[in-house]
Amino acid sequence: MVHQVPVTDPADPRLADYTRLRDVNLRKSLEAEHGLFIAEGEKVIRRAIGTGHPVRSLLMARRWLDPLADLLSGVDAPVYVADDDVVEAVAGFPVHRGALASLQRLPLPPVKDVVATARRVLVLEDLVDHGNVGAIFRCAAALGVDAVVLAPRCADPLYRRSVKVSMGAVFAVPYARMTNWRDDLGVLRAAGFGLFALTPDASAVPLDEADFGDRAALMLGSEGDGLSSHWMDEADRLVRIPMSDAALANGVDSLNVVAAAAIACHDLVRSR
Amino acid sequence: MVHQVPVTDPADPRLADYTRLRDVNLRKSLEAEHGLFIAEGEKVIRRAIGTGHPVRSLLMARRWLDPLADLLSGVDAPVYVADDDVVEAVAGFPVHRGALASLQRLPLPPVKDVVATARRVLVLEDLVDHGNVGAIFRCAAALGVDAVVLAPRCADPLYRRSVKVSMGAVFAVPYARMTNWRDDLGVLRAAGFGLFALTPDASAVPLDEADFGDRAALMLGSEGDGLSSHWMDEADRLVRIPMSDAALANGVDSLNVVAAAAIACHDLVRSR
Repeated sequence: MVHQVPVTDPADPRLADYTRLRDVNLRKSLEAEHGLFIAEGEKVIRRAIGTGHPVRSLLMARRWLDPLADLLSGVDAPVYVADDDVVEAVAGFPVHRGALASLQRLPLPPVKDVVATARRVLVLEDLVDHGNVGAIFRCAAALGVDAVVLAPRCADPLYRRSVKVSMGAVFAVPYARMTNWRDDLGVLRAAGFGLFALTPDASAVPLDEADFGDRAALMLGSEGDGLSSHWMDEADRLVRIPMSDAALANGVDSLNVVAAAAIACHDLVRSR
Repeated sequence: MVHQVPVTDPADPRLADYTRLRDVNLRKSLEAEHGLFIAEGEKVIRRAIGTGHPVRSLLMARRWLDPLADLLSGVDAPVYVADDDVVEAVAGFPVHRGALASLQRLPLPPVKDVVATARRVLVLEDLVDHGNVGAIFRCAAALGVDAVVLAPRCADPLYRRSVKVSMGAVFAVPYARMTNWRDDLGVLRAAGFGLFALTPDASAVPLDEADFGDRAALMLGSEGDGLSSHWMDEADRLVRIPMSDAALANGVDSLNVVAAAAIACHDLVRSR
């Protein structure tokens, strides 16, 4: 039984969850305050609901009711139905993928629980770009990384753009967030993980020659600044992606962080 | 001697090269007609000029004259100096990186010349996203792919966004464009290249187990559709990136094309 609720006024307070989806500051405080996140598009919404996130509401144009009928019939929450221009007026941009869902966040497990049975872990320091975080989750999920651990200031995997770019992979890989940037690598170390820092530094060991051992945590920093010196110091081993000599001579001395993460995950998982 | 030319009118015909930089259709015809392309930001402009592309003109706010003084002193072309709002009115968006250059394209070599001494080649079929093409060039350059060959309909590496996302790597890797989609893989074959098609197909050989031989051309298709059936049929060998069984069970069954290209270039070059 679908709770269809027609809405015509973009200022309708029942649509507040969907306000100005591209206004990062507004969204951060709104989502934190209500413990919600937004999923966009049929595939991602199905994944989000399928992984047990309670639905607060959905918002879509009428033409999406049919394709989503099977899903909506199991949802005990209002489905707001509005014309495209009303959705656009609320969200602040034309929502090409048509359907939006507002979902309740689930409590994140502690770091030690998320890595308890893991052997290959990715640790993201201060990545600020939501798209990059989403893309890295997609790599981690597809290639078989067991878990992701986020530094306290790493961008939110459940931010709309992260979820979208990940194609829903943020629901497929267990993850946790550190509470203490300075000390929480110790949780991984205590669990028997070797700490590997990915860096362009020429003195680091090429990825293919690294001995990742039984349990390995690979740390990635942001594209511009890389890993902090504190985390570099904490690492057991520095590893690098082998770059072409010609490229280095030409000044093409780095990869974007998603490309680097993809290669790193591939080699990390292959070493199992 | 810098030819500074102050401009105040966004409709000034001397700024026509910089018109509406985000209007893809307009830019395609304008750039083809005049054989020009646009570079944006200091680093990319330096690379473009450094690789011998003749300068038609530059356009920048006054504050960029000093940081670029050494470069400008060697340029025999007008440097249009305008306020930010004038630049924005011409370009159609706020140009954060400040400086723009309009450069003359150089004739592309034929495919057979570009691959003459190459051993590891990337072949891009119908990738339509300029950002993806730029990011793939960045991977190819950094990891040491010798050359890139483009299908007739692949997006333009010298389109502004490609150049920008590549961080100028489009100037660091030799490339050529096929004239005949149906037959030009034959040029590679005649040069002794094995043709490898990257596909998610589970029956393909895992990349790490592929024998790339002495000369290998790796073919990549677009993210959505993959390679055409004609190119798949032409391939000597299908190769795939090993995906996690758990991911496949969860429906996370693919990587984005840049992540896939990064891994593929890494394994291709390592196999030398």
